[in-house]
Amino acid sequence: MQTLQQMLSSTPNALLADAKVLDQCIEACLECTAACTACADACLGEEGLDMLRRCIRLNEDCADTCEVVARVLTRQSRADLEFIRSLLDACRRISAACGAERLLHAAHHEHCRLCASLCQKCDVRCDEMARALTRAH
Amino acid sequence: MQTLQQMLSSTPNALLADAKVLDQCIEACLECTAACTACADACLGEEGLDMLRRCIRLNEDCADTCEVVARVLTRQSRADLEFIRSLLDACRRISAACGAERLLHAAHHEHCRLCASLCQKCDVRCDEMARALTRAH
Amino acid sequence: MQTLQQMLSSTPNALLADAKVLDQCIEACLECTAACTACADACLGEEGLDMLRRCIRLNEDCADTCEVVARVLTRQSRADLEFIRSLLDACRRISAACGAERLLHAAHHEHCRLCASLCQKCDVRCDEMARALTRAH
Amino acid sequence: MQTLQQMLSSTPNALLADAKVLDQCIEACLECTAACTACADACLGEEGLDMLRRCIRLNEDCADTCEVVARVLTRQSRADLEFIRSLLDACRRISAACGAERLLHAAHHEHCRLCASLCQKCDVRCDEMARALTRAH
Repeated sequence: MQTLQQMLSSTPNALLADAKVLDQCIEACLECTAACTACADACLGEEGLDMLRRCIRLNEDCADTCEVVARVLTRQSRADLEFIRSLLDACRRISAACGAERLLHAAHHEHCRLCASLCQKCDVRCDEMARALTRAH
Repeated sequence: MQTLQQMLSSTPNALLADAKVLDQCIEACLECTAACTACADACLGEEGLDMLRRCIRLNEDCADTCEVVARVLTRQSRADLEFIRSLLDACRRISAACGAERLLHAAHHEHCRLCASLCQKCDVRCDEMARALTRAH
Repeated sequence: MQTLQQMLSSTPNALLADAKVLDQCIEACLECTAACTACADACLGEEGLDMLRRCIRLNEDCADTCEVVARVLTRQSRADLEFIRSLLDACRRISAACGAERLLHAAHHEHCRLCASLCQKCDVRCDEMARALTRAH
Repeated sequence: MQTLQQMLSSTPNALLADAKVLDQCIEACLECTAACTACADACLGEEGLDMLRRCIRLNEDCADTCEVVARVLTRQSRADLEFIRSLLDACRRISAACGAERLLHAAHHEHCRLCASLCQKCDVRCDEMARALTRAH
């Protein structure tokens, strides 16, 4: 998001890492949150709802987790880096699990296919973010 | 967000309102959440922190509220419309209050100026959304 | 929660309203959040899942909203009272709608019956809170 | 919370772990969320606000993280255990960091002292929960 980059460049706090990497990771987390929320809700409207129970559950965990990662990474002041690393680990784990589950249904549901792709992107961005943290500190 | 529009167009549920209006409101809420979180954190690093207490508090209320509005509007299945209307009211109220407080500090802090503008946009989008709900139902 | 009352009594900020009313409302919101999250998840495991789509959706809206009310009421510094009133309205609306939906399924699912009762309690506590705000300001 | 235990005992899903351990961990997370939110807000009203910047930041990360842990543990259906383990790790890390920071201010601020004790309790409960997961699976 253009504005988020501007916000990050106007903070008096030292940035956790490269602004572009931060921005891309925050944006990927927000998109993943929205996609998982939308996918869980779309699943609720499908006829074969019985097959989608695990999808819905993982979508909810993934939406909640990505939302917190976006919040934590948006804050630059006086962070605890070990916490951020472990939170990124957790986020990668649920993004990967949620994306894999989605792929099982991607042939039948376009929303699952789209959501799988955003989960995968989120996983990649969190990995890049973790590497950028290591380089910066 | 392009993907969110695609997600909305692939749901089996009837949309609450016009997809573009929904998407713009959800995106404005997510941007406002990120901006308020970033602004509160930037305020925490400023020298004149004493003057920014009310900013920080309203930023936090606004971030929390916009986040929930984004979640609720992302869901299309079987909503309670009166609830959504009252939640949009609450969101407009805190966006307006938070934006107005930000403007007091916009001359000194670029992050406050940017955040004020996103709060104002969120207020406008929630108003459009409430009108679209009325037209659709 | 005993500790929350102690926290509220140690803040340098003027309380929004009577500490006991605040504490009871915050606690009712947190219990309602947990109950709605647990009920949505329990519904996901039921055989007659098709009948529970609207339950799950309203549970999620209610959990998200009550969580934000708890956060906002836990903050005492420099609030915007009109916002808090409108947020309490929204919370009462979704608690009532969610509770009413739950009652339709209370005869078949104990988790729906328990959740309905916590939604109703949350509605009552938010009403008491709104009255206490009016008395205090 | 008594009702949460009742909710957990009425779910058709297999419990992740012993109901009492689950309930105690969820409750500790919710109390920690409320305490961290209250402590950050109380700090905002203190005279020596300059000294409390890191407290406020860690409180916010801790509140956000504990809230998500409470949500995830409240869901019993078809979880991803590796994700839950990594999320508990992240929660322990921020609870410990936030509690330690609080202790630096506990002599001056009762809200910091109370909050430190709830962070510590949350850390312990998350550790117990992780062990219970290992025993159960």
